Amino acid sequence: MTMVRIAIIGATGYGGVELLRLLERHPYARVSKIISGSHDGDLLADIYPHLRQLQLDQLEPLDVQEIAAQIDVAFFATPSGVSKDYIPELLDLGVRCIDLSGDFRLQSPGDYDKWYKYSSAPSQDYLTQAVYGLSEIFPQEIQTAKLIANPGCYPTTSLLALIPAIQQGLIKPSSIVIDGKSGVSGAGRGVSLNTHFSEVNENVKAYKLGVHQHIPEIEQILTQATGESMTVTFSTHLIPMTRGMMCTIYTDMVQTLTTQQVIDCFQEYYNHQPFVRIRPAGELPATKDVVGSNYCDLGFMADARTGKLMIISVIDNLVKGAAGQGIQNMNIQQGWAQATGLTGVPVYP
Amino acid sequence: MTMVRIAIIGATGYGGVELLRLLERHPYARVSKIISGSHDGDLLADIYPHLRQLQLDQLEPLDVQEIAAQIDVAFFATPSGVSKDYIPELLDLGVRCIDLSGDFRLQSPGDYDKWYKYSSAPSQDYLTQAVYGLSEIFPQEIQTAKLIANPGCYPTTSLLALIPAIQQGLIKPSSIVIDGKSGVSGAGRGVSLNTHFSEVNENVKAYKLGVHQHIPEIEQILTQATGESMTVTFSTHLIPMTRGMMCTIYTDMVQTLTTQQVIDCFQEYYNHQPFVRIRPAGELPATKDVVGSNYCDLGFMADARTGKLMIISVIDNLVKGAAGQGIQNMNIQQGWAQATGLTGVPVYP
Amino acid sequence: MTMVRIAIIGATGYGGVELLRLLERHPYARVSKIISGSHDGDLLADIYPHLRQLQLDQLEPLDVQEIAAQIDVAFFATPSGVSKDYIPELLDLGVRCIDLSGDFRLQSPGDYDKWYKYSSAPSQDYLTQAVYGLSEIFPQEIQTAKLIANPGCYPTTSLLALIPAIQQGLIKPSSIVIDGKSGVSGAGRGVSLNTHFSEVNENVKAYKLGVHQHIPEIEQILTQATGESMTVTFSTHLIPMTRGMMCTIYTDMVQTLTTQQVIDCFQEYYNHQPFVRIRPAGELPATKDVVGSNYCDLGFMADARTGKLMIISVIDNLVKGAAGQGIQNMNIQQGWAQATGLTGVPVYP
Amino acid sequence: MTMVRIAIIGATGYGGVELLRLLERHPYARVSKIISGSHDGDLLADIYPHLRQLQLDQLEPLDVQEIAAQIDVAFFATPSGVSKDYIPELLDLGVRCIDLSGDFRLQSPGDYDKWYKYSSAPSQDYLTQAVYGLSEIFPQEIQTAKLIANPGCYPTTSLLALIPAIQQGLIKPSSIVIDGKSGVSGAGRGVSLNTHFSEVNENVKAYKLGVHQHIPEIEQILTQATGESMTVTFSTHLIPMTRGMMCTIYTDMVQTLTTQQVIDCFQEYYNHQPFVRIRPAGELPATKDVVGSNYCDLGFMADARTGKLMIISVIDNLVKGAAGQGIQNMNIQQGWAQATGLTGVPVYP
Repeated sequence: MTMVRIAIIGATGYGGVELLRLLERHPYARVSKIISGSHDGDLLADIYPHLRQLQLDQLEPLDVQEIAAQIDVAFFATPSGVSKDYIPELLDLGVRCIDLSGDFRLQSPGDYDKWYKYSSAPSQDYLTQAVYGLSEIFPQEIQTAKLIANPGCYPTTSLLALIPAIQQGLIKPSSIVIDGKSGVSGAGRGVSLNTHFSEVNENVKAYKLGVHQHIPEIEQILTQATGESMTVTFSTHLIPMTRGMMCTIYTDMVQTLTTQQVIDCFQEYYNHQPFVRIRPAGELPATKDVVGSNYCDLGFMADARTGKLMIISVIDNLVKGAAGQGIQNMNIQQGWAQATGLTGVPVYP
Repeated sequence: MTMVRIAIIGATGYGGVELLRLLERHPYARVSKIISGSHDGDLLADIYPHLRQLQLDQLEPLDVQEIAAQIDVAFFATPSGVSKDYIPELLDLGVRCIDLSGDFRLQSPGDYDKWYKYSSAPSQDYLTQAVYGLSEIFPQEIQTAKLIANPGCYPTTSLLALIPAIQQGLIKPSSIVIDGKSGVSGAGRGVSLNTHFSEVNENVKAYKLGVHQHIPEIEQILTQATGESMTVTFSTHLIPMTRGMMCTIYTDMVQTLTTQQVIDCFQEYYNHQPFVRIRPAGELPATKDVVGSNYCDLGFMADARTGKLMIISVIDNLVKGAAGQGIQNMNIQQGWAQATGLTGVPVYP
Repeated sequence: MTMVRIAIIGATGYGGVELLRLLERHPYARVSKIISGSHDGDLLADIYPHLRQLQLDQLEPLDVQEIAAQIDVAFFATPSGVSKDYIPELLDLGVRCIDLSGDFRLQSPGDYDKWYKYSSAPSQDYLTQAVYGLSEIFPQEIQTAKLIANPGCYPTTSLLALIPAIQQGLIKPSSIVIDGKSGVSGAGRGVSLNTHFSEVNENVKAYKLGVHQHIPEIEQILTQATGESMTVTFSTHLIPMTRGMMCTIYTDMVQTLTTQQVIDCFQEYYNHQPFVRIRPAGELPATKDVVGSNYCDLGFMADARTGKLMIISVIDNLVKGAAGQGIQNMNIQQGWAQATGLTGVPVYP
Repeated sequence: MTMVRIAIIGATGYGGVELLRLLERHPYARVSKIISGSHDGDLLADIYPHLRQLQLDQLEPLDVQEIAAQIDVAFFATPSGVSKDYIPELLDLGVRCIDLSGDFRLQSPGDYDKWYKYSSAPSQDYLTQAVYGLSEIFPQEIQTAKLIANPGCYPTTSLLALIPAIQQGLIKPSSIVIDGKSGVSGAGRGVSLNTHFSEVNENVKAYKLGVHQHIPEIEQILTQATGESMTVTFSTHLIPMTRGMMCTIYTDMVQTLTTQQVIDCFQEYYNHQPFVRIRPAGELPATKDVVGSNYCDLGFMADARTGKLMIISVIDNLVKGAAGQGIQNMNIQQGWAQATGLTGVPVYP
């Protein structure tokens, strides 16, 4: 079997090295090019000594023609605002693209301009080609996509909890409150006071209340998946840990259910899905339960006293929230089993 | 001026040593007795080497008569279920008591039995004598109290944010969702898997969803302060840090206000209060901003898009959430300035 | 090819679950029995929810006859003092044993009694059968061993740095000082004040100075590998992190060498070894560079000013310091490539 | 009594805000000017919201004449390379200066140029005026000093452990190995990859082996205090915590002593010193035991087996290692009790 040839654009960010870590075990795909605008010509092992044993070490600049000639799938692990300048041409040249950044997630250019604060969104043509890569929810669309807009970490965590609840009529869509909590690696490797150890350690900080670019993404996909237009309340908090993400979700139940009834609905919904694990009643997932793995763990508490359904959803932000789900989407695209190369057990403790 | 003589019952817990740290600077009060059931006869410095320089070092058993003879104010820093067996007798003997535990907070014995799971609540007589020690809200009652039920950490954090908003008609009481986040020191010094370093570090975990004993406390005091009966949705999360607590509060605004209008209301409400700091619009408090101090910092985001008012409230759980507020209450009781001995700047970073 | 059948005795400790994590990827070995004295009959996923997806879930008691009948290799991931009661019988029944505990590491029963403080060492007969499983140093002995005494984490970290230096005559054996630094997971999952989050976090603590049971282990193996009897100075420190171990080693050079000369000697010594990575001059390894992997990374600084050679050696204490090296030894025993199933890239960040 | 008027130059670094925190409690000194080159004109509370309650808030540029007119003592909490350009003029104008940076610590300009890598050392004239501010060792010199070169954090930690041992003939000066471990706040507030949370957290990293600028400082002061010239081996490690520093010191004993004998020598040496605490035999200090305080805690292990004396010395790097010792030195200079304003109990946990 011929190996699928992969390029990682933005290989020196945390998303890029996570792709390298995960793909190193993939039986059918091989990383053939590692690309970095800022480190062109450098050796990866000089930037990340933990990768000293990898074969592929030489960072290259981005050359669209070369990628078209030598690569089957291009992963963009770049900051927002980069991939939109390269993906259209790559698509035209027949390269499949999986974009871990936010550039192609919002279907309306106006939304992009408003929430991302960049001068210009990608053109509507290419936005329309993009398929939102929430693997468990849109597998058919992903299978035939040329361009996959890989979901954000908070949207992945939230949507896997909310979509089944809305589709099955368990909760009132108008009532959704999402309290997001993220490890610091989600902010990437760029240095700033917000990620300076002495400022972040022993600290919890809320940020971007009401203005986070994941808000329109969550709302758009909820609408797309459920057919109902809705507005969500969403907050984000920085937690003094490196990896892991939790969304605590508060919703009004349509009618009072027991926790077990809710669990039964989710069990059935995610039956046979390899990466969503439903916890039994009385047990709530912690972020550490999924670190290093592609799992999303869901726990539930249906509170008869208040009529609220509380859902706890956890992922590793760099795996299911970025590189892992990207690979899962490639697997679907290529017709491989979803979990190919992704079956690692979480690293615990 | 004669120094007020203090006994600390439960001196070997984290609340107890925090009382020792703070009272060491108090100009009018002196710790005269340190009491520990489990460590009777031991030296405090053998248990806490960081206290090796303190004069008072000998731990004693609890002797009610001796306290009555030698002590003016008894602080209970004991786990719930202990103080209720001693405080009635001490009160009868004329000793003022400040209870950092939950034994006398709930006015209905039935609530205590239900939420604390102990066989028997304190008798109604003594419950009725207890004044809830939320210093900024009930200063008159505290001034004349013989027994102060010092608030829980989560209730302090939540109520200082909610009471002004409800009293001033800013928010709908039926809509309150409180997402609580706590450092691990709140769980005390007793060892357990839930506080085992390798399990807690690099982890966020939700716990006691819908069944936390601070739920009835918050609801009771909201009702008492506002005259309206209400039910709140409340969750708690363990954060991998030692000190600090945040409550992220979501409420529906009665009418759409700007963040600045909300801030103006709170500024006026807490005018001249030494320990509540209102942040300017666009700035949100972090837990680290108050570590080691008695401050409660409040930040606001009024979201016109969703009609929600989001409030971020932070304290140091061991200071304003326990020992510091206890001392603040003693100051009020004794007719001293509220901030006496409590003016320390937060320890940062 | 028939899969080698493995039993993990002590499957509910951190060493046990690390064996499960690593063996899940092993192509030629399968975990067939998970054994726990304290949790006999329980389901592993109820103790470790992160393992919910594993097929094998039922914990069993230790039954020597059953192991002899159904198992090829028994891994002991038990606390010291347990395996010595079971391994002799298992060996007599023909089961290969790999012992991650300290029971069979010290060749003299008197040393065991002195440093481990247990009433009775294993019998000399079985001690003599034990091969010390430092994979890179004793591969021949390991290949034919029936019983492998897997090295301690500190000895692994220290010996891989020291043995080549002594064997090649670079340093004076009388001068060795080892400053050990360990993450908290090395202390296991048993709760205690020493591993209580609020005590360990934001703290460095030295422990067991001069009395650590790894001292005689290091000295014995140095003597065994180099033919010279020696005494080392060794200290241990608890670091506020979960995984990772560093030994900073100070030695007198026999003659002044440059850092590059030292590196060349080590490069040659560990040539073709898959798990020892020598850093270039000017680069020092950090513990995070090896987390989750079986690597030991070594960095050097030859100080002409003082005549000292300083060596920095890092491992993941649960992998190369326990489970990973155990599997590496099994691979050698079975005649498989050393790195079989162990080639995972470190988890970074 | 007139308050001594203080200026803090470099008020927006961690050393500067620690001076503010500590001086806020000082009974005889008042911060009258806060100076920042980079933030001239800004409000301190906009940079450090935790200081929102302080009276003095307006940052000013450095104006030497104004300081001479309005200030009694100028504290420099600037990075190395700044104070040397201002202190000479301030001294000439009669302002007492306490320099927390390294500019005036090394008595030889050549050493400064070599280890600090700056183009030019301060002139020999002013270097000669500088008194090394190790409070417990040089109180006479400090009392009459116009310029105090406040010791570095590692030198403070090491020298308080070593000087008594050498002066009393306990150890061989040629044998000293110092393994230093520091929290991240020692690196200051400037952002860099070395202090980026995701890189530092869950990590131990050695740095500047053999080239740290504190090496000549330690050697110079050991020589000055003991009359013997000596070379020390010194290493530094970054620990994933914010505050705290430990030096683990290994030395050869001149003759074998018991741990108790060593302790007795140190007890006598530091008798009546308020900030050095000697631990009893069998007890070793941890960094957390001194956080927030000006203590240096010392623990000892005299190992008869190896002839080594191991000393564990811990401080809070921002207090005894910087701001606290600076204030202690001012107290000595002014003829106040050493501990004036510095008697705070450590913040624990």
